[in-house]
Parts: sequence; structure tokens; C-alpha cells
Amino acid sequence: MASASKTSPFAPQTLATLPPIEGVSFATAEAGIRYRGRTDLMLARLAEGTTAAGVLTRSKTCSAPVLWCRESLKGGKARALVVNSGNANAFTGRRGADATRLTAEAAARAVGCTPAEIYVASTGVIGEPLEAEKFTHLLAGLAQRTEADAFLPAARAIMTTDTYPKLATRRVEIDGVAVTINGFCKGAGMIAPDMATMLCFIFTDAAIPAPALQALVTRHAETTFNCMTVDGDTSTSDTCLLFATGAAAARGQKPVAGADDPRLAAFSGALHDLMQDLAIQVAKDGEGLSKFVTFKIEGAESWAAARRIALACANSPILKTAIAGEDPNWGRVVMAIGKSGEAADRDKLSIWFGPHLVADKGERAASYVEKTVAGYMKNAEIVIRADVGVGTASATVWTCDLTHDYVSINADYRS
Amino acid sequence: MASASKTSPFAPQTLATLPPIEGVSFATAEAGIRYRGRTDLMLARLAEGTTAAGVLTRSKTCSAPVLWCRESLKGGKARALVVNSGNANAFTGRRGADATRLTAEAAARAVGCTPAEIYVASTGVIGEPLEAEKFTHLLAGLAQRTEADAFLPAARAIMTTDTYPKLATRRVEIDGVAVTINGFCKGAGMIAPDMATMLCFIFTDAAIPAPALQALVTRHAETTFNCMTVDGDTSTSDTCLLFATGAAAARGQKPVAGADDPRLAAFSGALHDLMQDLAIQVAKDGEGLSKFVTFKIEGAESWAAARRIALACANSPILKTAIAGEDPNWGRVVMAIGKSGEAADRDKLSIWFGPHLVADKGERAASYVEKTVAGYMKNAEIVIRADVGVGTASATVWTCDLTHDYVSINADYRS
Repeated sequence: MASASKTSPFAPQTLATLPPIEGVSFATAEAGIRYRGRTDLMLARLAEGTTAAGVLTRSKTCSAPVLWCRESLKGGKARALVVNSGNANAFTGRRGADATRLTAEAAARAVGCTPAEIYVASTGVIGEPLEAEKFTHLLAGLAQRTEADAFLPAARAIMTTDTYPKLATRRVEIDGVAVTINGFCKGAGMIAPDMATMLCFIFTDAAIPAPALQALVTRHAETTFNCMTVDGDTSTSDTCLLFATGAAAARGQKPVAGADDPRLAAFSGALHDLMQDLAIQVAKDGEGLSKFVTFKIEGAESWAAARRIALACANSPILKTAIAGEDPNWGRVVMAIGKSGEAADRDKLSIWFGPHLVADKGERAASYVEKTVAGYMKNAEIVIRADVGVGTASATVWTCDLTHDYVSINADYRS
Repeated sequence: MASASKTSPFAPQTLATLPPIEGVSFATAEAGIRYRGRTDLMLARLAEGTTAAGVLTRSKTCSAPVLWCRESLKGGKARALVVNSGNANAFTGRRGADATRLTAEAAARAVGCTPAEIYVASTGVIGEPLEAEKFTHLLAGLAQRTEADAFLPAARAIMTTDTYPKLATRRVEIDGVAVTINGFCKGAGMIAPDMATMLCFIFTDAAIPAPALQALVTRHAETTFNCMTVDGDTSTSDTCLLFATGAAAARGQKPVAGADDPRLAAFSGALHDLMQDLAIQVAKDGEGLSKFVTFKIEGAESWAAARRIALACANSPILKTAIAGEDPNWGRVVMAIGKSGEAADRDKLSIWFGPHLVADKGERAASYVEKTVAGYMKNAEIVIRADVGVGTASATVWTCDLTHDYVSINADYRS
């Protein structure tokens, strides 16, 4: 493992404090899977009756745990989640599938359920066989000592190159009954859309059937995690799971009809908000970043077109490096828009760096003053907005710059 | 402009010597467009009767010269080519179109033809207005002093961040009549497929009508320049032009029927070979590179699928950085194959680093010895081969690694 890299300049001063959620409890351990002197195994226990939904990587070389979760999600029930860091159990063949099954079976015995009610996620090095025996014997003990007020240690146990744990919480009402949504996630490199982020786990005490939960998480992943990129590299292991314990039913929350039940509107909004919060936290901990960058594309033919243009910008090495160099090189924004393949009217194209109009209707703005915009580029948070002049749709994508530290971190990740 | 960066470790010991081609001559000048103390303007004169073909960037924000060439190519005739470096004349609005037109008009007067027989290319910074008056007055003088034996100075005048000029020559027969194909190109960053490379100019004395010439250059661009990438960033200015003076007709070369005329087979093969040679030279001068990398994807559903998988590898920042770090991190090859979106059978996937089998049918090869493969990674030229196990098609893509120097060069390109 590379030596610890510099903490992200966007590491929060104070971490969010997540209240306990009825029906959810955690325990962690130092299993020594790859790291020494830190936790690398996490067990989440979930109350009987918990429903589950999730989005998983679309990678054709997805990991064994992703295949396992895909099966478990068909049942829509959950009693436990086991996550290890340090080894992704990806591209590990039959042995990898066996390791995941052994993990799920041990967890099922530990909490008293069927293996199909267990969810497994692994993150870390790809291709290294994962020896499940290193930690399966710990699960029974962990199940005995789970605690409700332990979201932070759970979030820490799943970190890899992350420089801070990513946590978020929201409180909202359904039928006048207060429910909580807590989530945490990890991911700092090999992060790109067309997926959830690497690993994200969300918990709520709301009572929501699995199909409605699935519809909500699928819908909101599109505009949150799938609008975030660090390096354009889609992981084999991306997993975003949402668990609803239903504990709020005992406090009077009535059953809901489906994802579009108007009584879920506030919940849906809060869930979107929390997922966006976590996605932005991931981008703000992008490997080696010095700046957090938002691309807002307007005037596109459709939301999908706008997102594709924004992603072409957000994944352009030559543009991301210019931003790292604090160079207001808006010509590279023009290039990235042009290469996206989506419709754009070169002669109507306008570009803003923060509040500064730099390009106006197809050429450098008359008001452009290089020194002013170069001053803006010294900010830690950069917003680049472009109107491509062909329609009315818009989309926003979050990313970070490409720095020397990204190269250093990834040139010696395994050394 | 950034200070001169280190010369590529792949800079040739001796540059190719290009023989003169009947009907082609060059002159260059120091116009001071952006650079000082070096040539930045090149005029190529072409004999009456020269046919022209070309492929141009598909960027939606293409430069004014690209739009101009697209029009000129409709006529298929050429009498001169004007190229400047230091300014791409891209995203420069009406003034940019005017600058290109003024350039073509001045060149047309200088050589005595219509503006539609003039081709223009510009490379350098995007978005900066190009003041054509800085150099149009030089064209008449240049036209008076062109020389046939001047491919090398012509290639030097069009360089930007290139650390060496890229030249190639081939000799082949049509109907027993010897013809020559000479080419040179430039391009070191903002280089990606779905285009020709940034600028490439090829000349031959063969007599080939424009439609046949166009068919040949389009076909061969697909498997040469469009299989090469430095950073996945498609330029606004990519231009590959092929000029045939027809001088060989006077030496007995009979007219050809079309691109598939069997009498053109050797010419077509030599042209492909020359274009591949130049494409590889561009990748070997990729900005900041330390290694030249070849990805060979086999066992894919189609050539297009194989190329897309190979490009997903070649454009992956996290994989390119690992290669720079001499880390045989084949897990990142698995990731890149998975993210490509093309069919691949995870459980049949095999990967080789040079002669070393590292992954065999979906998991780490039994014979894998990390130390051996780490030793292979110290080579300057790396070949990574993968069989994705779903078909019989294959494709090859050439690229380079992603280094600290790439970040340095692009963080302060304009400073």
C-alpha cells in the first residue's frame, strides 16, 4: 500500500453526527486482510423485516460480491451487510465466488437468517485472492457486539485511499412520522459514472417495500453518483445499497403504495439530497485533488446530452491538469464540449468561469481579462458553466482536478 | 508557453530521410505568431493536377481551418497548403473564419490558383484570435523560394509541444512504375481517436483520382491514427491530408479505377504502413511519456468492439499511471475491460504483460510471479495483450503512460 497521502483540502472540519436508526447496528474489527493497525471488516445487523434496494456496477468484469448482491436484491430482504476493505475480491474466479459465499454463510449463521438475506461488499486491490478464512471466524463475535451508535467506525472500516470518512444524515416526515436517513460511502480513485460510487450504504427506519425503494435509489443514483467522476475509471465493485428497517411503522407510519406515492415526496427529496451530498464528498476526496470542480452544462438538447458533455469536460485529462495549474484555459472546455459527440452550436457557445464570462457566442468575450479569471482560478472550488446553444436542457457534474499527487498515488498504489 | 520539456525517450537516433517528390516543394518562415526564434509558418506548393483527400476532426467545436479544408476537399484539387503553429484559430468566431479566408486568398495569389485549391491548418492555443496579417504578407515571398528537398524543415515548422519531428517515407510500384509516399505529422497532447491525429500531411507522386485517394485515407485512418491515443482528448483541429501530384503518370503510371483497383494494392499497403508508422511516432512523443504502450485485444465480438476495449485501457488514467510507476497492476486492465461496455467473458479472460501470462481464465495465473512481471515493467516499451473470450476479432491500440511530466506540461502550457 502506498504511504498515506495528504489529507484532502476539502476534508470537513467536523464530521456529520449520525443519530442511531432503529433496527441498524454495527461492529468492526481489525482482520488484517491487507492493512495493519486499522479496521478493515464491518458487519451491519438489520432488524427482521428490513427491505433492501441497490444499484451495482455495470462493469463486465464485476466482482464476486457484486454478483452476490445482485442475487440477494431479487429477494429484497436484508438482515446483514458484511464489508471488507483491502481486497476487492474482483477477478478472483471460482475461489472469489467461494469466498463471498463463505462470508455470507458465516454471516447468516451469526445473525440467524438465510444467506440470501446477506449483502457483501469488498474494496481494495483487484485480482488478489481473498482468503475468507481470515475473517469469517470473526463474524459470530461481531454479531454479538454490534452497536446502534456506530456509523462513524463503520464508515472508517470501509475506507481505502479515502482521506476522510464520508457521512450524511437527513430527517424527514412520512405521514407526520419522523424518519431518519443515514448514509456513508467510500471511494477516492477508479471513480466514474455509469454505476453507483465504489461503496455506499444508506439506512432508514422508514417502512418502504423493496420495489419502491429500488425505484427511488435507481432514479436518484442517475443524478447524483452517476453525475460524479474522479478519473473516468469505473470500478469492478461499485455498490450502492439502501436498507429500510421499517421501524417507523410501529410509530404510526402507514404503508406506502410505491415510489411515486405523494406521501413519499419529502422522503424522496431528502434521499436525493443525501445521495448528492455523499457523491460530492467522494469527489472532494478524489485522489490527489487540489480543487473541487463543478461543470454546469446548459442549453443542451436533453438532460442526457448535457450530462455527457459535462462528463467529457470532467474526464478530460488536459482540462483537469490546466485547472490544477490554475490556468483559465477555457479553450480546453471548448475542446471537451466538441469531443463529447453531442450537439453544440459552436457559434452560440458561451462559457463562464465562476462569475466571469470568458467566451461569448463562439469567441473570446470582449470583456475577458485574463488576469481576473486567473485570479478566480486560485479558488479551491471552481464552477465552470457553459451554454451550448441548441436547447433548454441542463445537467451538473462534480469532479476534481488532475494533479501530480494523483500520479504519485496511483503509480505506487501496491508498492 | 511552457519551457521546453524533456525530449521523449523514444526520439529517433536518426530522423528518416525523405526523398523529394516531383510536384511538391516547401518553404518556411519565422512569422512570430507565438513562438520566438523558430519557424512557425509553412507553405507547401503542389503541382497543377494534384488531387487531394483527407480526414478531419469530428469535433463539434472544430477550428476555422478544419471547416475550410472540408470545403476544399469537395473539389478534390490542391495547389498549396499553408500551416501555422502557435495558434489553433479554433473558437475564434467570424474573425477566425476571416483569418483562414485571408490566408487562403493570399496563398492563392502567391501560387496562382483559386482559394478553393488551398488547404489551411493551424495548431496551438485555442480561443486566441489569429492575426492573419502577421503572416499573409510573407506568403508571396515563400512561394518564390520553395524547395523540393525540404520535408524536414517543413515538419519542424508545424511542431508545438512535440519533442521531435515525425517523418516517414515508403517506396512502392504501381504498374511497375516506382512512386514515393512521404508523410510528416505533429501532435503530442490533446490526442485521441475519432479523428485523424492533430496534423498529418502525406504526399505522393502517384496519379490517383481524388475519390480513390479519399477512400484510401479514410480506410487507413481507422486502423492507424484512430487506434492511437495520448490522453483521450480529441482536438478541435485534427487534420490528415493526402496529396497526389500525379507526376508518376509522365513516367508511365496508368490511371487507376478506384481505391479497390488491384493495381493499387501495394500502394494501399504502403500507405497504411506509413500512416501506422506516423501514428506510432505521435504516441511515442506523447506529452511527458516515459513508456510506449501497445494494447492488443483478442477474442472480441468484432474489430470495433476490440478497438473500444483497447481504447478503454489506453485512456484509463489509473492504468496509465500504474504503468508509469512500473507496477504490473493487471487488475486495472480487468477494470478497463469491464468499463468499456463491450462484451467480455470475465471467466474466460486471460491477460499477458509481454511474454508473461498474468491472468488465466478469470483469475490470477498459477504461474504468475509478481517479481518477474515487475521486472518486465521496467522496459521502455510495454505490450499488454488480453483475450476477452467471446469471439475471434482483434485490434491494436498504441498509447503512452501518464506521468508527472504530463501534469507539469499541461498545468502551465500557456504560462
